[in-house]
Amino acid sequence: MFQTYEPAQRGGDSGERIARLQELMARARIDALLVPHGDEYANEYLPECSERLAFLTGFTGSAGTAVVAKESAALFVDGRYILQAPRQVDTKILEVLQVGKAKMGEWLVKTLKPGAVVGFDPKLHPPATVDDLAEELASKRIKLKPLAANLVDRLWGKERPSPPKGAVVVHPIKYAGKSAEDKLAEIQAALKKDGQDAVVLTFPPSICWLLNIRGSDVAHNPITLAFAIVPASGKAELFMDPAKLDDEAKAHLRRLAKLSEPKALGERLTALKTAGKTVRLSPAAPIWFHRKLGGGKARVVRASDPCVLPQARKNAIEIKGARAAHKRDGAAMARFLAWLDREVPSGRIDEISASVKLEELRAGTQALKEISFDTISGSGPNGAIVHYRVNTGTNRALKPGELYLVDSGAQYLDGTTDVTRTVAVGQPTREMQERFTLVLKGHIAIATARFPKGTRGVDLDPFARRALWEAGLDFDHGTGHGVGSYLSVHEGPQGISKGGMATLEPGMIVSNEPGYYKKGAYGIRIENLELVTEPEKVPGGEREVMGFETLTLVPMDRRLVVPEMLSAAELAWLNAYHVRVREVIGPELGPEDRAWLDQATAAIPTPRGR
Amino acid sequence: MFQTYEPAQRGGDSGERIARLQELMARARIDALLVPHGDEYANEYLPECSERLAFLTGFTGSAGTAVVAKESAALFVDGRYILQAPRQVDTKILEVLQVGKAKMGEWLVKTLKPGAVVGFDPKLHPPATVDDLAEELASKRIKLKPLAANLVDRLWGKERPSPPKGAVVVHPIKYAGKSAEDKLAEIQAALKKDGQDAVVLTFPPSICWLLNIRGSDVAHNPITLAFAIVPASGKAELFMDPAKLDDEAKAHLRRLAKLSEPKALGERLTALKTAGKTVRLSPAAPIWFHRKLGGGKARVVRASDPCVLPQARKNAIEIKGARAAHKRDGAAMARFLAWLDREVPSGRIDEISASVKLEELRAGTQALKEISFDTISGSGPNGAIVHYRVNTGTNRALKPGELYLVDSGAQYLDGTTDVTRTVAVGQPTREMQERFTLVLKGHIAIATARFPKGTRGVDLDPFARRALWEAGLDFDHGTGHGVGSYLSVHEGPQGISKGGMATLEPGMIVSNEPGYYKKGAYGIRIENLELVTEPEKVPGGEREVMGFETLTLVPMDRRLVVPEMLSAAELAWLNAYHVRVREVIGPELGPEDRAWLDQATAAIPTPRGR
Repeated sequence: MFQTYEPAQRGGDSGERIARLQELMARARIDALLVPHGDEYANEYLPECSERLAFLTGFTGSAGTAVVAKESAALFVDGRYILQAPRQVDTKILEVLQVGKAKMGEWLVKTLKPGAVVGFDPKLHPPATVDDLAEELASKRIKLKPLAANLVDRLWGKERPSPPKGAVVVHPIKYAGKSAEDKLAEIQAALKKDGQDAVVLTFPPSICWLLNIRGSDVAHNPITLAFAIVPASGKAELFMDPAKLDDEAKAHLRRLAKLSEPKALGERLTALKTAGKTVRLSPAAPIWFHRKLGGGKARVVRASDPCVLPQARKNAIEIKGARAAHKRDGAAMARFLAWLDREVPSGRIDEISASVKLEELRAGTQALKEISFDTISGSGPNGAIVHYRVNTGTNRALKPGELYLVDSGAQYLDGTTDVTRTVAVGQPTREMQERFTLVLKGHIAIATARFPKGTRGVDLDPFARRALWEAGLDFDHGTGHGVGSYLSVHEGPQGISKGGMATLEPGMIVSNEPGYYKKGAYGIRIENLELVTEPEKVPGGEREVMGFETLTLVPMDRRLVVPEMLSAAELAWLNAYHVRVREVIGPELGPEDRAWLDQATAAIPTPRGR
Repeated sequence: MFQTYEPAQRGGDSGERIARLQELMARARIDALLVPHGDEYANEYLPECSERLAFLTGFTGSAGTAVVAKESAALFVDGRYILQAPRQVDTKILEVLQVGKAKMGEWLVKTLKPGAVVGFDPKLHPPATVDDLAEELASKRIKLKPLAANLVDRLWGKERPSPPKGAVVVHPIKYAGKSAEDKLAEIQAALKKDGQDAVVLTFPPSICWLLNIRGSDVAHNPITLAFAIVPASGKAELFMDPAKLDDEAKAHLRRLAKLSEPKALGERLTALKTAGKTVRLSPAAPIWFHRKLGGGKARVVRASDPCVLPQARKNAIEIKGARAAHKRDGAAMARFLAWLDREVPSGRIDEISASVKLEELRAGTQALKEISFDTISGSGPNGAIVHYRVNTGTNRALKPGELYLVDSGAQYLDGTTDVTRTVAVGQPTREMQERFTLVLKGHIAIATARFPKGTRGVDLDPFARRALWEAGLDFDHGTGHGVGSYLSVHEGPQGISKGGMATLEPGMIVSNEPGYYKKGAYGIRIENLELVTEPEKVPGGEREVMGFETLTLVPMDRRLVVPEMLSAAELAWLNAYHVRVREVIGPELGPEDRAWLDQATAAIPTPRGR
């Protein structure tokens, strides 16, 4: 079982912790301290030892920052967590504020005296965040001060968990599709071409991709925590706890890099600076790295991590793996949806039992390494909470007349999946059907888009929304995110959203997941993963265009479709998709599930009068 | 006649001029000099005295930068001018390079020695341009040096034209819709709210809007060249040649501001800095202003010109004016298109005679103050040149079997227009009709879009392209730009394009002009101006959505429409648009033109089999 269902504990003694932190702050002569959710690896899922925000405040969300001043404190969270946070933290001590409506800079300007000093851990913030905040504080001459030691860690003391020591395994070339030697050579060629002496890699997924290794240091993402320096020529150096390496991993890595203890990193960075080297570093790397490497004759080139783009553009072997993973996962999902239809009338299915069953069915493939994130299993009003995570306190039965939304995914050696389906429990209302169909129209508009080279995710996002906009509806999240290959389920640079400025390139995998959420009533989301295809000529056209190959093969609930609202082309797409699902997934199923699949993917006839 | 048709003169003695400039550079101890197209007002149309690039090189395009080094020189132009520039300049002396394919920084790094100095006029460049270039030059330690005097002006000497002294007129409140006093009060309230002591206004259209004045210092834009300082409280100060003011204008302006000579500006900025003031300044203002105002205790807040947004959001009177202007202009356009259909069979119509006729018909309204830009009158292959401007050397007859593209506009006291129509001359090919219909589908997709608050132009742009993309086609310009109210025909911040990051707000006017261009064959563009409507509830919806009211009322050529390619909704839109054109414009026309309009706007029947 990769998922657990206990409610997160309220931060019982956060009052005392914050009071003791304020004492440490006074001794360090700072007037306020930033405590962000985040670690030095920019991880989405933090190891226990980096859950400083939860330790201090009790807030367990995946994003947020506490600001602790001498006599007051605030917690800034985004819209996703504005309901959860006040339930988890002691609101007498911590004022909970929503990012976008309140600004951290304004709170500090209001709270602190002119000339005050705000401390921060330079390993936990990229330069842009610090620069932006500094600008907001300039009017009152409030200074930001990087601290040599993390005060929350000092407070935590011996109780603080050790850094994880998850075993590292070699990711075989039959899944990776390219040797680590070849990848290293390409990165080094890029450095030489750009006149850079080295690159410092600070994102574990990049290092795992580059060196063809995987790990188990955090939940859901099969990564190992490490830093690396890759020089333009010569051997790379990998900074990682050697306890994580068995003989095979050690042998594999020693061919590729010098293995060093994490504590050696600082002096190696200093050596690069002293030697006046030009070093490439991601703008998103913590400011600690930028400060270590810049200054004097040395030069930091702020440019994207060079692994990110080749990692996002899956190679032919990875694409083959993705198709296999989705076939396997689609069969598990079909078994799950068939089971749901059979069992739901009993009235005994609830969000947790459904989620547990889904994980069992995925485990039954014998290929499941992890789930790719905690399953979002939401019935009725819980489906309207975009990042809902069920626990025993919120668990609800799946009731007739409601919708059930399930967003889940798996980590297989050959690929990472992520799929959302919305299912009618009993008889849906006409409104549910109409709004499901509007979301479906958006989903199809993305799936069928053709677009020339240079098109970015932001240029496709509106297609997912147009039908909803016409009905005076919308959804408040992006349409899609990039997905890794047995790596992070959220992977850059590509994405389909209002901020999706990376161009879409062949081999990239991106989710297509428009939705609609009626607060307190129901949620709808339809998500497939899409592979960006190679550019090709259209007959009679001039420019090559790309498109999407849909990887996810899972039936969409026909009971929620209003055929009259679909154009002939949209209906044809849905029916053709279901034919594909039936043909690919059908042979994987036993007779009972197969019979279910046949009716679940049967063609929807053209409405009369067309 | 506002437009002339002589070909631009080739820079005959540019070799000598550049040689003399290189002598001046040597004396000023600089190794290279930047000579951009642009002036201290960020004008689109330059006064003669600022046409330094044309004076030096002979290149007359509306954008470009020459870089003159000791022994070589280059001219950087964008894709629009890559054909024109080499015909205008002496390519033995000036290497013509295309922005995007070549980089100025790389050219300088390649050309200059380490530690070299590149001079620039700080009044002609915003900080971002200089900063970006400085970063590109850092690797070779090449420095950028602001020069106190413009070396091209020194070279030009007494031959340089004087700054323009176009008369300033008061723009009456019956067109402006709001008094200058009220506008000033709102700007001052905004400054107080943001804790800023003053704003320095460097864009003439902002000053004209704010003070309800218009001028005639440059072609096509009815602006007067001026700078202004507006303090958070107290009287504004306007820096402008007093020779441009008659008694009425003087009396109007004296109520609003202290009138000062332009040469007083520098010391006034220095005084703000010395007093340690916090001054708001647009990031797009020349670096000269930023340097004058920043440093010591003084603070420059880089924020958008506060006039830009209220100026873009037209008030009720301006909207009423826009509708009246478009009715008047639509009638002139209908007379023109009717005349064209009657006269084209004679074979005597060419691009110039058509353009002259159109200006005559607009002048015949008795309301024409100026044309809003040089008419793009392109037949056959000339229609494929996006920014084509006809002259006696390029003039072509309108020939049967070709398309004719005409993009034009007028400046009336009550509004600015901009309209493009593509007309079939004789029998068009099926390909022309199909591609026209694809462009039309994109145009209709914009015209009919509904969108929630917060939607930006970039979020609508893809709708204009989807049908073309599906056919493997596209166009290489934005879909639309903002338009002023008897002001610039290109006005920010709004726009519909890949870079359109400003949110669309009610009252904004934006063009809707998708196109398709077949190089060497024909061009298609369909342009209307659209007014962003107030947000309103959709029946059954949750969020208020905005949309567009089409202002332009001119028939679209039915002979180019393939009805089978339009959906029922698209065809209904086209027919309803033509009904509106007929009803509003018809009564303005004489019997012959009226008869033409009736057939040109007749309903296209639904194709059989639907």
